[in-house]
Amino acid sequence: MGKEGKGNFQLKTPKGTRDWSGTDVVLREQIFTTISNVFKRHGGVTIDTPVFELKDTLTGKYGEDSKLIYDLADQGGEICSLRYDLTVPFARFCAQNAVQNIKRYHIAKVYRRDQPAMTKGRMREFYQCDFDIAGQFDPMLPDAEILRIVKEVFEELPEWKGKFTIKINHRKILDGIFQICGVPEDKIRTISSAVDKLDKSPWEEVRREMVEDKGLAPEVADKIWTYAQLKGGKDVVEKLQAMPEVVANESAKQGLENMALLCDYLEIFEVMPALSVDMSLARGLDYYTGVIYEVVTEGSAPSASAKDVAKKEEKQKKQKKSTDPDEDRSNDPTIGVGSVAAGGRYDELVGMFSGKPIPCVGISFGVDRIFSITKARLDKNREATALRPTEVDVFIMAFGGGKDFTGMLPERMAVAKELWDAGIKAEYLWKAKPKLQNQFKAAENGKVPWAIILGDDELKAGKIKIKEMGLPDGHPEKDGVVVEKNRLVEEIQSRLAGKASLPVRSA
Amino acid sequence: MGKEGKGNFQLKTPKGTRDWSGTDVVLREQIFTTISNVFKRHGGVTIDTPVFELKDTLTGKYGEDSKLIYDLADQGGEICSLRYDLTVPFARFCAQNAVQNIKRYHIAKVYRRDQPAMTKGRMREFYQCDFDIAGQFDPMLPDAEILRIVKEVFEELPEWKGKFTIKINHRKILDGIFQICGVPEDKIRTISSAVDKLDKSPWEEVRREMVEDKGLAPEVADKIWTYAQLKGGKDVVEKLQAMPEVVANESAKQGLENMALLCDYLEIFEVMPALSVDMSLARGLDYYTGVIYEVVTEGSAPSASAKDVAKKEEKQKKQKKSTDPDEDRSNDPTIGVGSVAAGGRYDELVGMFSGKPIPCVGISFGVDRIFSITKARLDKNREATALRPTEVDVFIMAFGGGKDFTGMLPERMAVAKELWDAGIKAEYLWKAKPKLQNQFKAAENGKVPWAIILGDDELKAGKIKIKEMGLPDGHPEKDGVVVEKNRLVEEIQSRLAGKASLPVRSA
Repeated sequence: MGKEGKGNFQLKTPKGTRDWSGTDVVLREQIFTTISNVFKRHGGVTIDTPVFELKDTLTGKYGEDSKLIYDLADQGGEICSLRYDLTVPFARFCAQNAVQNIKRYHIAKVYRRDQPAMTKGRMREFYQCDFDIAGQFDPMLPDAEILRIVKEVFEELPEWKGKFTIKINHRKILDGIFQICGVPEDKIRTISSAVDKLDKSPWEEVRREMVEDKGLAPEVADKIWTYAQLKGGKDVVEKLQAMPEVVANESAKQGLENMALLCDYLEIFEVMPALSVDMSLARGLDYYTGVIYEVVTEGSAPSASAKDVAKKEEKQKKQKKSTDPDEDRSNDPTIGVGSVAAGGRYDELVGMFSGKPIPCVGISFGVDRIFSITKARLDKNREATALRPTEVDVFIMAFGGGKDFTGMLPERMAVAKELWDAGIKAEYLWKAKPKLQNQFKAAENGKVPWAIILGDDELKAGKIKIKEMGLPDGHPEKDGVVVEKNRLVEEIQSRLAGKASLPVRSA
Repeated sequence: MGKEGKGNFQLKTPKGTRDWSGTDVVLREQIFTTISNVFKRHGGVTIDTPVFELKDTLTGKYGEDSKLIYDLADQGGEICSLRYDLTVPFARFCAQNAVQNIKRYHIAKVYRRDQPAMTKGRMREFYQCDFDIAGQFDPMLPDAEILRIVKEVFEELPEWKGKFTIKINHRKILDGIFQICGVPEDKIRTISSAVDKLDKSPWEEVRREMVEDKGLAPEVADKIWTYAQLKGGKDVVEKLQAMPEVVANESAKQGLENMALLCDYLEIFEVMPALSVDMSLARGLDYYTGVIYEVVTEGSAPSASAKDVAKKEEKQKKQKKSTDPDEDRSNDPTIGVGSVAAGGRYDELVGMFSGKPIPCVGISFGVDRIFSITKARLDKNREATALRPTEVDVFIMAFGGGKDFTGMLPERMAVAKELWDAGIKAEYLWKAKPKLQNQFKAAENGKVPWAIILGDDELKAGKIKIKEMGLPDGHPEKDGVVVEKNRLVEEIQSRLAGKASLPVRSA
């Protein structure tokens, strides 16, 4: 929230955007680092595309959501829009440069003129972390690599190990099942969207939508339900492969062969324990052509009772009365944040640009949602308070007082210079004659782990004191240790060696 | 340049923007890492502000350049513009949050609807790397820290050590000199802008502008010239302090005291050898109130003869005939790229937002210009070809052929998994039965330093072969070494230990 600035001026960021600062940005940077380290481990190279694209590039890619695209004003020249995601710019890049194959990652902001809900991490400006593989390879090998990447990311993020599930399905299996159940060809996409709501709505509600809103025959809907409930490991694939009517359908048969092979690979990669083959997963976007997956976590997509749904609808109706496009939706905590990562195979998107399709498969991590959940878990464990606001390792202080106290500013600066020369992160107080108390306070506020304390007598003897901050009373080194001044850099380096550079330790 | 897409569609990025990929993005990432490591060494914390701000936030901050601001379309709700720099959003942040003091860095893109000149690194979307210090401290200590940061950055960037000069001046000295020379109060800013052109234009041309265009008395202009030529180290400060008419001026006197103190501090920090106190440096922006500085390098701001200037003007006149706002300016290689970093003290800007001024001093690195120059220097030394496109350290291959060759896909995947588990960056070819030749080619294209080669006989004996890529013929390990398979991770880790992780070694 902003406040009144000088004059009539509103001192705030635009609706749905926020500043990131303090330990929030420290934690988010750590999440970026963890994710990009995994990407690099798998041979990922980063590309950077402009924050805005020609409007034509985005047109016709997002269906109904196109209304959420931000346009730039027409100030003469080309008509441009802010990117809505990183996938379409990636496909444009591949088409424009006739890319044969690439493993690319991209961590950047995207823009959606949606109703913001801050506490859910739903903003108008937010980060995505995408990894995509383009190119022609033997079946399911890139797909297996992506899912291994998902596993590594969530096992290495603090507070996520063992707390995530990768739901997976395959468009060809879904399409086959819809055909088997008797869904008319022109209703497959819309019925697919209805099935996708099963993570948030009970079957009765989804069935009502299919039959009443979308005109599906009730017996077709009920047949879908017998399949949509299937959920488990590789056994789901085997169960479906044992059903004669399923394998008689060419699309389902192909999809199941894909999935069986993928499960074999994921067995080798030790991803299977985190996987849930889930026939109710459908994913909204039209462009998926093969495997689809999303990652959920405790509380990220709560299953709702019919009563909850009714309540929610009541609330939404009330909200529709408002006409202010910038008004917040109610931050109802019973509404989950949805998936924390999602993706799939999209073999046709690049061809929409160049006419020459390149097979692609990818994953997008919703890093702002991941941030919100990670922060809440750290807070619960009181670990968030342990986050260091800066990476400074050493605070240089002058000890003294009274009228003879010089403040030792040149001496403190000279020590700082010596440490910086050696690459050591160091600060001192920008005051000519600082009180010792204020210097300690500054070091404590910054959670700086080490202090160097300059004293007249010690300096004359070529000595200097090093003190570890925060030692308990009675610790033998509570008052610090005196070392040779000309060995200062080595003494500090040996104390810093082996300390984790990341502010939160990995789970 | 783009190309024709499917249909009438133009497959390109918007004018003045580009994709970054391949080794360009690797080198740029290294520049970011080098710069942000220096920022962190000095206690910098990063903040992240939205890419667009309320239009009102930017209004009245950039003078004539305001016409270069990109606006978002009015789609209902607030009126917003893309940020023009990182300084004004930082000042807005400080005012909004009533920040008492902060050392913040911000590496992000900014937007200017200027005429692009790709080869000079002048784009409509480009990165800035800013470090700013806000808060009340003892005189010149934050200023000295900023200049020390500048020195560290350029000494640690590849191909920059010893190849940069920090030009420095002080607004109060300049204002004092203008008063002493008899410049009318209302002409000080415009005459200051004229002086600032002395790095690109000869004195005759600047004098003509002052006298003919701006109506300054010729003798006043000539008096300015006697001061503007002063250039050197701390001696320039001392020379001016020895001039009675200069120290009689309160503004000049204060400015010189500031500069003398700063030079003392920079002596301790060993920055003086890179510094040039230069009375012809004036800087365009209105908001500077104290020290101002910019960093130049060989060829970044060539001094031009009067003849060159005439030629340039002729060319500019011709270009003005064009009315297409998106047309490129001629990429005349005689036009320098200007400074590669610049900044100064601005004590009033935050007060423009909140009414409560907070003293600030900062530096902005023009990282796209730095990139262009670094790349040209590396190319000249043929080091650019040594850039690794990815960070992959190990490529896993299967050795074999003929009809019995299985391709050892599960075995290669299992080895990859083992390496990933240990955090080692590894790839294998996504092909069930790959030719050895194609596997080597993939490793060579990626400049991957190590290969692991699986062979049937060795695997049966619990062994595995490690081979360093690119060894010369006759090297004893040219054909690789065979190690115990169960010690593979350790064997690889010990070979990788101590290798630089950055693609270009620091100078």
